[in-house]
This record gives sequence, C-alpha cells and structure tokens, in this order.
Amino acid sequence: MDVLQELVTKADTKLVLLVMDGLGGLPHPETGKTELETARTPNLDRLAKISSIGLHTPVATGITPGSGPGHLGLFGYDPVQNEVGRGVLSALGVGIELKPADVACRVNFATLENGVITDRRAGRIPTEEGARLCKKLESIRIPGVEIIIRPEMQYRAVIVFRGEDLGADLSDTDPQKTGLAPLPVRATSDDPASQRTAGLFNEFVRQANQVLAEERPANTILLRGFDKLPQLPTFQEKYGLGSAVIAVYPMYRGLARLVGMEVLDAGHSIEEEFEVLKQNWDKYDFFFVHVKPTDSSGEDGAFEKKSQVIEEVDALIPRVEALKPDVLVVTGDHSTPALLKAHSWHPVPILLASRYARRNMWVEKFGESECARGALGFIKSTDILPLMLAHGLRLQKFGA
Amino acid sequence: MDVLQELVTKADTKLVLLVMDGLGGLPHPETGKTELETARTPNLDRLAKISSIGLHTPVATGITPGSGPGHLGLFGYDPVQNEVGRGVLSALGVGIELKPADVACRVNFATLENGVITDRRAGRIPTEEGARLCKKLESIRIPGVEIIIRPEMQYRAVIVFRGEDLGADLSDTDPQKTGLAPLPVRATSDDPASQRTAGLFNEFVRQANQVLAEERPANTILLRGFDKLPQLPTFQEKYGLGSAVIAVYPMYRGLARLVGMEVLDAGHSIEEEFEVLKQNWDKYDFFFVHVKPTDSSGEDGAFEKKSQVIEEVDALIPRVEALKPDVLVVTGDHSTPALLKAHSWHPVPILLASRYARRNMWVEKFGESECARGALGFIKSTDILPLMLAHGLRLQKFGA
Repeated sequence: MDVLQELVTKADTKLVLLVMDGLGGLPHPETGKTELETARTPNLDRLAKISSIGLHTPVATGITPGSGPGHLGLFGYDPVQNEVGRGVLSALGVGIELKPADVACRVNFATLENGVITDRRAGRIPTEEGARLCKKLESIRIPGVEIIIRPEMQYRAVIVFRGEDLGADLSDTDPQKTGLAPLPVRATSDDPASQRTAGLFNEFVRQANQVLAEERPANTILLRGFDKLPQLPTFQEKYGLGSAVIAVYPMYRGLARLVGMEVLDAGHSIEEEFEVLKQNWDKYDFFFVHVKPTDSSGEDGAFEKKSQVIEEVDALIPRVEALKPDVLVVTGDHSTPALLKAHSWHPVPILLASRYARRNMWVEKFGESECARGALGFIKSTDILPLMLAHGLRLQKFGA
Repeated sequence: MDVLQELVTKADTKLVLLVMDGLGGLPHPETGKTELETARTPNLDRLAKISSIGLHTPVATGITPGSGPGHLGLFGYDPVQNEVGRGVLSALGVGIELKPADVACRVNFATLENGVITDRRAGRIPTEEGARLCKKLESIRIPGVEIIIRPEMQYRAVIVFRGEDLGADLSDTDPQKTGLAPLPVRATSDDPASQRTAGLFNEFVRQANQVLAEERPANTILLRGFDKLPQLPTFQEKYGLGSAVIAVYPMYRGLARLVGMEVLDAGHSIEEEFEVLKQNWDKYDFFFVHVKPTDSSGEDGAFEKKSQVIEEVDALIPRVEALKPDVLVVTGDHSTPALLKAHSWHPVPILLASRYARRNMWVEKFGESECARGALGFIKSTDILPLMLAHGLRLQKFGA
C-alpha cells in the first residue's frame, strides 16, 4: 500500500462509493435466491452488464466483520492493523465528536448483589430506563476530567473522558460471567497516563455505585472496550481526495470522519441522501453514500423487507448516473443474510461502473452468483479504493 | 518463494512463456469486445478449451506496471521488492550490456535560460537531433570513468558511468517544474562511493553545459533515475532452468539477461522469433518469447491493429505446438487497452497448456471475459512461474 500512495496523482474525476450496509445475503430456502437476487433491480442489472462485477472479502475468509472493520476496509485501511475500539465505535454511533485525546468506553448497566454480578445486562432494561440512569450518572464529578455520558440501546451506554494526559491501555471491568465480582480497571501497559486514567475510571465506578445504590435491577455499571480514536492518515493525505460522507446514521458519519471525510447533512431518508449528493456534487472528489436499512432488515431476519430496500435504492440509481460519476461502486460493507439475522462472513457483491471498466455483457442480474464469475473476480475490500483510483485515472504507472 | 526454491527438481521438460506485451484490453465502446476478443484466433481458442485459463495481476490490484515490474513478475520475482531503476531500464532498452558496477541514468535534453529550466524536454527535439547532441557529449572526459552515451527517442538519452567504486544512491537534477533552477546531483545515503559519484556526475553536467552552450533549444541536460543493475538470482539458481530469451526489442532482452537468460538473435519479426525458437529447441529448458507490437499498437490507440497483431501470433501458434512443449503459457506482462493508449491496471488473460492442466471445455473464445471464469482463476503474475514448473513436473512434494 505504500507503493500505492507514491503513485497517487491528481485528476478531475468524481468517485462515488455507494454502500448498502449488509448487502450480501444467503439464498431463501424456497427459491434459492438471495435478497439481492430476489429484488427487482432493473437499473443495477443494466449497469452490471457494462460494469466490472465481483465479490469482495472484508477482513479475511471466514471472518465476520463489525461495522468498524467493514468500513475501514472499504476505505482502503487494513481493518486488522487499524482496529477501532468498541468504546470509540459506540461514541461515534451516538454522535459524540471525539477528540484525539479522549478515552471512550462502552458501559453496560448491570446488577450487583453481595459483591458479585448477578446480571451483566440488568435484565435488559428498556432504552428509556437506560437514558434516565445516564442522566443520574451525569452528577458524577472527577477533577480535571470532562465526562460525557450517552445512552445507547437498552442497557448499553457510552462514557467519554476528556482531559489532559489520559491513556487508554485499560482492561475491562466486566468479569464476563455472573457470580463473579466486577474487576477493577487496570492499566495494561506501563504507560503512566493509562495508569493514572485507570484510577480515574475506578473512581467513576465508585461514585456510580453510590448514585445507583437504590436502583434495581441496574445498580452498577461494567466498563469495557476502552480506546482512543485511531490516528489514521486522511483521504486527502492518502489518496489526494477531497471527500464527503452522506449517511443518516451517526456511526457511519463517525467512521468516515476518522479518515478525514467531511460530514454532510444527509437528511432522514435514502432519497434525501441522493438529493444531498446532487447538491454537493461540485464540492468533492469522492462521496461515500451509506444506506442503513439493508443491514437493519437483514438483522431483523426480514428477507422481503431487505429486498424492498434494495429495490428502493435501485430506483434511485439513475439519479447518481445523471451526475455522470467517473467511477461508481455499488457494494456493501459486509453481508447480513436475513437467514442468519446477523452480520456474516460471506463475500460481498460489488459493481464498478466506469468508462475504463471491463464488462460482463453476459450478466442478466446483479447478484451473488453472477458476481462470482465477474471481471473483478474475488478481491479484498481494501482493493476497492485502489481500483476506484485506478479507474478514475488517479494513479501513475509503477516503475518504468 | 523460498519454499518453492527448495522443491525445485530436474525434469526433461520444455517450458515456453509466450508474452504478447500489453495483451489485456478494454471493450470497444461499440461492440463491447476487447482487442483479444475481437481478434479471429482459431488456434488460441482451440487451445483454450484444453488449457487452464485465467487472469493474472502483475503488481497489485489497481496498480499499472511499467515494463520492468511487468516482466519481473512474469519471471517470478516480486516486482516491488526488485525494482529496476529508470536509468537501468533505459540502458537495457538501447542495448547497453550493463556490468554490475555500472551506474546508469536517464537524460532529458532541456532548455536553460537565465539559470532556470524553461523547457524540461527542449521542445521535444526530433530523435535525429537528440542523436547528434549525444555525439557532441561524447567529447566529455571524466578521469577514471568510461562514459557511454546513447540516444533514445526525441529528447531522451541514457548515460552509463563505468569505473571503479561508483555508487548509485543519487538524486535527480530535474526540478520537475519549469521556472526552477536544475538541482545538483546529491548522494541520498552516506555511501562514500555514491558521494564521490555525485561529484562526477555534477562535473559531467558542467562540461555538458559548455558543450551545448551554443545549442537551442537543447542547451542543457537533466539527469534522473540513477541506478545499478539489481542483483537477482538467475533462472538456473532459482529454478534449475537453462533459459533463453527471444525478443526483437533490446529492453526485453535486457530484462531477461537480469535473471540470467541467454540472449538469442531474434531477427526482426514475430515469424522470425518463432523460427529462432525452433532452431534452438534442443538447447534450453525454458524459452521466453516476447512479442512487442501488441503493446505498441495499444499505446497508439490502434484497436484494430492490436487485434491484427494478435491474429498474426495466433497463426503462428501451431509452430509452437509442433515442437510439443510440455508447458506453453500465452499471456501478457500487463494490459495496454487501445482505449487508454497506455499501460493499465487490468488483469491479464493467461492460457496454460499442458498435459496436466485442468481444462475449460466450455470456452468458446480466448478472451478476458472467459478468462475471468477459467480454471486458473485470478492469480498474481508471480504465480505463473511456479505453475509452469509444477505442470512441467519440476517441483517436488512439500512436506511428507
């Protein structure tokens, strides 16, 4: 990849990465067709014929990626070498604009009885209850530290410590099993900042136990996934691309901000996202457009709903085409088959449309089966950005 | 690759690597077919059915290789770890038989006015003018150094310093932009030989400015791409193969000599090359036959001409078959689509014919689309030599 960076050059070309989150699927037991193969997608099918299609593997064969690794791979960053901690991902997910020195961690409300954890999720309290408890925790004071607390879903929340000289080489307090005492936060390295910060988080837990003493079932908190923002080269530094993200969900805006993309106000629907793309067309070289409901419906096991979301995106494809991007990639960050109701390890269909793309004239339908025989073959997700740069004529020749 | 080298064994098998330079292409906008898919190639099509076909990536996905990396990959040498400097490649290209201690660099004739470069290519002077100026530069004397000067095309030439204790860790003098003064040659490391050699090249430039003082527009020279021959293990050492190159163009003979191939007199046409192959059939284990005009016509944007060259090669395929090679590979070193008029990053079609090759009986035509679905799949160019050795029964089993 260092080779690639030396080859980056400027060009007046526009690149669009359209991600349908969790796009890849598995065959419906009755029809043998995946969600994508079932969807009526005349525009993507037409495009697939004159595009290079293929399948990409997000992390490694057999590995199911989370949203962090999935997107970092799409952005061309090795998702194993650049792991994003759970705390940071949670903070991005709730829209906290993390600063480089911040330490974030994931919080679980839990139940403590006689010194041991009896429920690691506090009976899966409802989201409103979690929000109420977070409000209570806001009364906690630690000298020299600004504390940001935000509820996530149900029993989950996120804490960010903001201040000077904080370290994130810290171990979880979650004992992983009920019947065991919660663990203290410990520094996992001899970094003095982390050793000091361990004490600050332990003080936070001590105060939290006081604040929550009368609550049931959520009378304590467990902390895990301590991390700081990873320090990544930006899209501008790495690829010479002015870039922007259009995403309704905060986590994807946060992930894009990690690599220096500017965040555009995406509105609240897929159609609005495409409108925002059009409005900002002249301002950036690269657009990352993120569509969430493919993943959500996959996680819900809603096979037909996922197909419908794909159809909704398909109907909007002509609006992107009308902008005449030099390179348009349509893909997902991972697979989320309705059959599994979860992210999966299956390779993800990809379509790359460009004047300089090899074609697959024999293709009838944009789908997993056709992609397995396509001109792109089987690639890694980190190959996608180099391919977009190449087709956008933004890479010089290597060697004479 | 170390594993491979330990497994190499002797066998009485003949291997032929037939390279159509820049073979891979892109679809013609009207027909959707590439140059190779458009060419009438009955022999290659027949062979493709009973061969393993696939696509190979020369350097990495999205990377466009120069001729050096392209061929080193085909020869099984990692093209990133074994970069060949531009000066060396130019010297090989004009047929200078470089010795290991030689330092080569590329020369651009340029225009200098009031101490700054006003034209980095001296108005792209014609080739004959460049040759005349090279003759003038031959009057330059540097004590202890034999100087070899050869014109290339137009404003380009190559200089080789031959002598004792020369180093090539040297920086370019080309300021890359007009309006700037040329830079002095500087040593880029603390290698004493390179520090000494920097002074010698600066003295050469000083004398060149005197010799060219009355010339217009080419009154100075810019130097870049200083390098020595890379030290590579030979084909004999690495693969136990007695090998020979048949190539009309000097650069490809030079690249083959880098890996220890013997240079045969290839004549002046593709047909003569095949005749030379026949004449020398008993003398070597491995033949690298290089066909240039596929690349030249691609670079000229001459789609039909490129198809015609492929047809010309196709008509000669029976002559290779008549020699009964144990392994015949037909491929390119990279793609050169007429649409791009340049080398490109697209994977390159490959056909491997052997008694022990998996077949693709369904293939109708040897071309990029069929290759994407072939028995070889998508491979790296450095996989080709191991595959040739394996099909030639020249590799032992790994492990018990």
